[in-house]
Amino acid sequence: MTDAAPSAQNTRTASYLAEPGEVNRVLLLYSGGLDTSVMLKWIQDEYDAEVVALTINLGQPGEDYDVVKGKALQLGAVAAEVVDARDEFATDFILPAIKANAIYGLAYPLFTALGRPLIAKLAVEYARKHGCDTVAHGCTGKGNDQVRIEATVATLAPELKVIAPVRGWMMGREEEIAYARQHGIPIKGGAETTPYSIDDNLWGRSSEGKWIEHLDHAPDDDVFQLVTRPELAPDEAEIVTIGFEQSVPVSINGERLGLVELITRCQDLGIKHGVGIVDHIEDRIVGLKVRDIYEVPAATLILQAHAELERLVCTIHQNQFKGELDRKWAYLVYAGLWWEPLRTDLDAYMNEVSKQVTGEIGLKLYKGHCRVVTRSSPNAVYDAQLATFETSGGLFSQQASPGFIELWSLQSRLAHRLRERSAE
Amino acid sequence: MTDAAPSAQNTRTASYLAEPGEVNRVLLLYSGGLDTSVMLKWIQDEYDAEVVALTINLGQPGEDYDVVKGKALQLGAVAAEVVDARDEFATDFILPAIKANAIYGLAYPLFTALGRPLIAKLAVEYARKHGCDTVAHGCTGKGNDQVRIEATVATLAPELKVIAPVRGWMMGREEEIAYARQHGIPIKGGAETTPYSIDDNLWGRSSEGKWIEHLDHAPDDDVFQLVTRPELAPDEAEIVTIGFEQSVPVSINGERLGLVELITRCQDLGIKHGVGIVDHIEDRIVGLKVRDIYEVPAATLILQAHAELERLVCTIHQNQFKGELDRKWAYLVYAGLWWEPLRTDLDAYMNEVSKQVTGEIGLKLYKGHCRVVTRSSPNAVYDAQLATFETSGGLFSQQASPGFIELWSLQSRLAHRLRERSAE
Amino acid sequence: MTDAAPSAQNTRTASYLAEPGEVNRVLLLYSGGLDTSVMLKWIQDEYDAEVVALTINLGQPGEDYDVVKGKALQLGAVAAEVVDARDEFATDFILPAIKANAIYGLAYPLFTALGRPLIAKLAVEYARKHGCDTVAHGCTGKGNDQVRIEATVATLAPELKVIAPVRGWMMGREEEIAYARQHGIPIKGGAETTPYSIDDNLWGRSSEGKWIEHLDHAPDDDVFQLVTRPELAPDEAEIVTIGFEQSVPVSINGERLGLVELITRCQDLGIKHGVGIVDHIEDRIVGLKVRDIYEVPAATLILQAHAELERLVCTIHQNQFKGELDRKWAYLVYAGLWWEPLRTDLDAYMNEVSKQVTGEIGLKLYKGHCRVVTRSSPNAVYDAQLATFETSGGLFSQQASPGFIELWSLQSRLAHRLRERSAE
Amino acid sequence: MTDAAPSAQNTRTASYLAEPGEVNRVLLLYSGGLDTSVMLKWIQDEYDAEVVALTINLGQPGEDYDVVKGKALQLGAVAAEVVDARDEFATDFILPAIKANAIYGLAYPLFTALGRPLIAKLAVEYARKHGCDTVAHGCTGKGNDQVRIEATVATLAPELKVIAPVRGWMMGREEEIAYARQHGIPIKGGAETTPYSIDDNLWGRSSEGKWIEHLDHAPDDDVFQLVTRPELAPDEAEIVTIGFEQSVPVSINGERLGLVELITRCQDLGIKHGVGIVDHIEDRIVGLKVRDIYEVPAATLILQAHAELERLVCTIHQNQFKGELDRKWAYLVYAGLWWEPLRTDLDAYMNEVSKQVTGEIGLKLYKGHCRVVTRSSPNAVYDAQLATFETSGGLFSQQASPGFIELWSLQSRLAHRLRERSAE
Repeated sequence: MTDAAPSAQNTRTASYLAEPGEVNRVLLLYSGGLDTSVMLKWIQDEYDAEVVALTINLGQPGEDYDVVKGKALQLGAVAAEVVDARDEFATDFILPAIKANAIYGLAYPLFTALGRPLIAKLAVEYARKHGCDTVAHGCTGKGNDQVRIEATVATLAPELKVIAPVRGWMMGREEEIAYARQHGIPIKGGAETTPYSIDDNLWGRSSEGKWIEHLDHAPDDDVFQLVTRPELAPDEAEIVTIGFEQSVPVSINGERLGLVELITRCQDLGIKHGVGIVDHIEDRIVGLKVRDIYEVPAATLILQAHAELERLVCTIHQNQFKGELDRKWAYLVYAGLWWEPLRTDLDAYMNEVSKQVTGEIGLKLYKGHCRVVTRSSPNAVYDAQLATFETSGGLFSQQASPGFIELWSLQSRLAHRLRERSAE
Repeated sequence: MTDAAPSAQNTRTASYLAEPGEVNRVLLLYSGGLDTSVMLKWIQDEYDAEVVALTINLGQPGEDYDVVKGKALQLGAVAAEVVDARDEFATDFILPAIKANAIYGLAYPLFTALGRPLIAKLAVEYARKHGCDTVAHGCTGKGNDQVRIEATVATLAPELKVIAPVRGWMMGREEEIAYARQHGIPIKGGAETTPYSIDDNLWGRSSEGKWIEHLDHAPDDDVFQLVTRPELAPDEAEIVTIGFEQSVPVSINGERLGLVELITRCQDLGIKHGVGIVDHIEDRIVGLKVRDIYEVPAATLILQAHAELERLVCTIHQNQFKGELDRKWAYLVYAGLWWEPLRTDLDAYMNEVSKQVTGEIGLKLYKGHCRVVTRSSPNAVYDAQLATFETSGGLFSQQASPGFIELWSLQSRLAHRLRERSAE
Repeated sequence: MTDAAPSAQNTRTASYLAEPGEVNRVLLLYSGGLDTSVMLKWIQDEYDAEVVALTINLGQPGEDYDVVKGKALQLGAVAAEVVDARDEFATDFILPAIKANAIYGLAYPLFTALGRPLIAKLAVEYARKHGCDTVAHGCTGKGNDQVRIEATVATLAPELKVIAPVRGWMMGREEEIAYARQHGIPIKGGAETTPYSIDDNLWGRSSEGKWIEHLDHAPDDDVFQLVTRPELAPDEAEIVTIGFEQSVPVSINGERLGLVELITRCQDLGIKHGVGIVDHIEDRIVGLKVRDIYEVPAATLILQAHAELERLVCTIHQNQFKGELDRKWAYLVYAGLWWEPLRTDLDAYMNEVSKQVTGEIGLKLYKGHCRVVTRSSPNAVYDAQLATFETSGGLFSQQASPGFIELWSLQSRLAHRLRERSAE
Repeated sequence: MTDAAPSAQNTRTASYLAEPGEVNRVLLLYSGGLDTSVMLKWIQDEYDAEVVALTINLGQPGEDYDVVKGKALQLGAVAAEVVDARDEFATDFILPAIKANAIYGLAYPLFTALGRPLIAKLAVEYARKHGCDTVAHGCTGKGNDQVRIEATVATLAPELKVIAPVRGWMMGREEEIAYARQHGIPIKGGAETTPYSIDDNLWGRSSEGKWIEHLDHAPDDDVFQLVTRPELAPDEAEIVTIGFEQSVPVSINGERLGLVELITRCQDLGIKHGVGIVDHIEDRIVGLKVRDIYEVPAATLILQAHAELERLVCTIHQNQFKGELDRKWAYLVYAGLWWEPLRTDLDAYMNEVSKQVTGEIGLKLYKGHCRVVTRSSPNAVYDAQLATFETSGGLFSQQASPGFIELWSLQSRLAHRLRERSAE
């Protein structure tokens, strides 16, 4: 169709991007690492603006938040906040992902993708609290995270603008280090000296960069900083039982645990046995393929157990259909559309299914591998069904099969004969 | 895989089928027509069993239920019940179908398929009330209705057995008439003398048999006993507005109506203007293709209006995804799986979507055609969006497009070039 | 995951956009209308560049291409070409759409969407022939067509750049007219004075703008410039038979016709009987909802007939599955991804199916409505099947049904009981 | 709709079932095991019919076919044939499964399901060769295999009938052994004394029965007769590279191999490293859930490598869509519909995709686990794409992202605001 006649329009590339004059007080999503530390300084200089630093605890292991906060203030932040969002992350983001058996592209359990909408939601809350007009983040222009953060801010707070300095400042790693040295920004040893670009939270850890970009390079050992390499894992296998109530994981080996605690325990178990290493090619939403190395011990255990239990308590019709919704859920969240109403629709479906997903799944962990070995559930379609085989008034008759086969294959048979005939 | 070793097993073709000795008191689904009248007598004779007749009013036009009841008693039924189930049919069966935009195979709005599980559910209730051990129905072995009724009875009442005399008694139409004459069963003029096999309720009417089985035979005029033939419809078009609240149709031209009343009015409007004629080939669940002539005036108006309104208040993501669930819903119900938990899961999704589906749709009716001409909704994604075009702080920037196109087409472009190169 | 570290990068919004200094010789897609006439002049002035005008005949009714060509040269084009691409359009674009039963969003048969990749492909060919470095088109920043054209150019000719003046020049309709008067650009009466924004080709016609944007405004009569209003159509219905061979429409009422000629005849028939009016809300790929008024007579007849024939010769399994691929095909083409390899994959599937799609479909046309009334095919699953009912060695046994029902409903029944029990 | 009036009909449960008097010469699918040996005798006695034994080599390890043949003749077969069908199995059944990444229910690579249509096809060929009127098989009435075999015979040879003695003879394992002793049928030690019910071929092995039916019973060690238990596998990991040309696996570690040989080598590698153990719950087509223990070493290596390579050479659109077709392919084959035309349609799609699937995948095998560690392909979308990042005229611009995000999230944002507003 012909496009409508032109009219007065924006000249910005995106309506939510801040133009220079609009930036007075910035809420910066601050990790304490090199990128966002340089950014904290750079924003003050480039925009002549105040910066409020916000650091969010989603369960990144080994982070000292007092140090991060101190560093932010030292670099000139007018305020620095640290928020422990682990419970909200587990309950409102990871749990729906469990119900949706959320895996993107066959292997990625979405940990970063689940964290970003929460981080951006908190950015909006704290920006409003501190009277900021702009949110700043450290994502590049090639990744998915910019989509997730900017889409969330634009959705929840149309009055806020966004800046993404990394996308435009044309500094590479070396220029950033030079800038840091020049402006007295401390460079810590650990994260800054690893050759990889890292992201992590309660649900997993990713590594990018260096040899990872060479697809024909098998993983170097030093990339695995979370999970024990399988060769170094215990020689003894371990069986662990995860209990679920209506899709919520509630116990390990019979011990009831809160969700954050349970996830942490699963993480420890996976770490110990070398479970949860993913090495795969991913189709980013912005059109690139990338290779990612993930370490996702907790997600591997819990998602595998949940999927098995769900299949046990659901009918063949439910099992064959839900996968399509699961994949859509994962895609939406991967693609930054957490706030899309379709996700809410899908959640309503998931919640209905999950009413039956109660029971226990036993997993055997051994040198990098995790396999379901036992299942039990009061709602298993299996148990009750078996029982009925033994009684004459049961649900099933062996003599039923020929009638089934007759009708099941009817059109296929007829069509086959027609094709044979026309091929003669 | 190898099949398990054989064990003691049933010899019945289906576990719910009654063997002769088990039939003492039968709940017969009784329409008053030839098939079930013959059956009422035949069951008494063949099984030496008592018969309770149950007749259900789902809005079949022109039925005199007192006459039907009297006939049942006259033919020897020990009891005869007539149930007006129109409200339950509209609320619990048609309304979910509206939310699911339920159409099977591009054109069939499922009216019979929606009625059967309700009929069978009532059969179970009345069988229990009257102490029957068996349910009898008049479906043949070639259709979908046997599946719908028997699956429902077996689901809701495992203690009841089923008999389906038509499937086995080897009587054709002429043998039935002979049997009727021989046993003093009155044959009424109307339905019995129409050359077609008819089924109808509030939501539609179907005709089968005779020339309909000849696919290259254009419909004879006499088949249309419900809807006015378009050539005879008024020369003046009529615009009618249907109002919805959360997917429930609640008004016509602003007048609030109960659901049964509203459906009846839509039926009258469609009848008047020749709307709702369907002539199509259908893939039955038991493997056959059949041609059906449907007259579905109410369903045509309401489903068309609902689908349009839903698309207006939903996002592109919702609109592109829900169709798959709608089709699955229709398939399950068509295929006799009303009681399958997947339907309940789908309903949870539908109910979430329907929260927004409030507004009014105007339809133009004219000589067999029905077309949407107006829409309005407080939840339209459209209205609000338009408004924002006119303000500079709007949601949309024309300059955004090139960036979108760049990323949207990125992989396609790259893949195309690789293929071009390898083709050289 | 964390985004990779920043590196040297483009500063263009899209890699294929021309920067001012790069534009020396422009291939302009020229329709002869106001937008592109203003553009022809404006490009010469703004870029100090030469313009080659390319006008493409895709079957727009009533166009005088000599006049268009003369106007281009008069406005300063260094060359003006007119290409009759109707055969290529029909064979390489419309025919695959027929095999895919291509409808986007329930009602749009993709005519413009099918034309754009061909137009852009020809733009590339003629740009290369004339040594142009840039392609210019007249699409706005709110529509789908910019996506289709720019994605095609960037795919087929990475060495060419693109400019889209309307997206940036900030002229409204009145400014354009003023510009035209100021620069001696003739303004013709017809198309320029219609209140609507029009696009058309062999496969359909669209109108946008004015009252169409008001969703609660029923169509004014003057918008229908192609199809006869149903009220003015003949009082006599007409039955027309379309013949297909392997999905290619080859005859009307038994007369064999070439594809362009056949489409034109169907167009005439639809026009005569008021068939093919669409009034619907569409989800554009760039995120907007719009209302479109389409007149698609040829597409309505041919697609309806093809879909019916396909269902007749395919099994229930094929029929239930192909729709998903059809919808994906339509979506890709709608969304500007004609050159995406997934379309080629889908075409391989469609071509396999189409091998059986041979036969004749009769359509009854009457005052705005088109309904299938007859079908015949040597490959009908139906005909052969019917025959077998009458012979004892046939494919079907009525006694097969109970066994089928037993197994078909088994899990649903069991699951229902478990739920009942746990609800107690 | 109302079912059509009754007419003359079959009284058989399925049209292809043999009635006693019709059985004169039977083609028995003979494995040499207890079930079919008893059957060989039983058919002669019960039907007074001649039996031709057919034994098919699909790569079952450790079978001595001369012994099997001799046993058949000894038990009274009028003829005994042994067919080596490994090449046909690999080329015509396994290879299409590789192209379709064929997995049913998350874990089952369909080995038995792929073998059955070939076995039944050969049964038809040899039944015709030997003038048989009936085909006999040893499947029970609870499994999928009866569906696969009977549907194939009924499709390919409508003139043949089928008998399935196990479904009706009411003998359990002990009765069978008693029958064997009574009739002088030798009972060999190995397979007969294993507590499990086994099936195997080139593509995998299954075990059923005993504790396997107790879902909460972790696998006993003695069930794994093919694959080394991971705990006993080598302490040294091994990396193996599989090369593909257009989806056909053609080499291991650079050595070119024929398909049967290559599969056998992959099987040996998997066996050595404990790879390919599956313990899962499966939804049978006849409505039951069962637990199966599979050992599928070759399938695990090859399918994992193929899926990774395919994702590397396909676009995001192809990758997101093909899974649906893959799942449908696996479902059809699992469900006994090998001869359904939909499978042919799907194969056409698969073959189009496979044109690009050329390259090498490295797998690391270690103590039960198999993980992709390297990939390379001349058609990788990845390699070429990376290259373009480094050049200024590349395919990708970081500045494109905001425009993408703006449009990508547009409707979601708007819808979110509307919902917020109406929730106030």
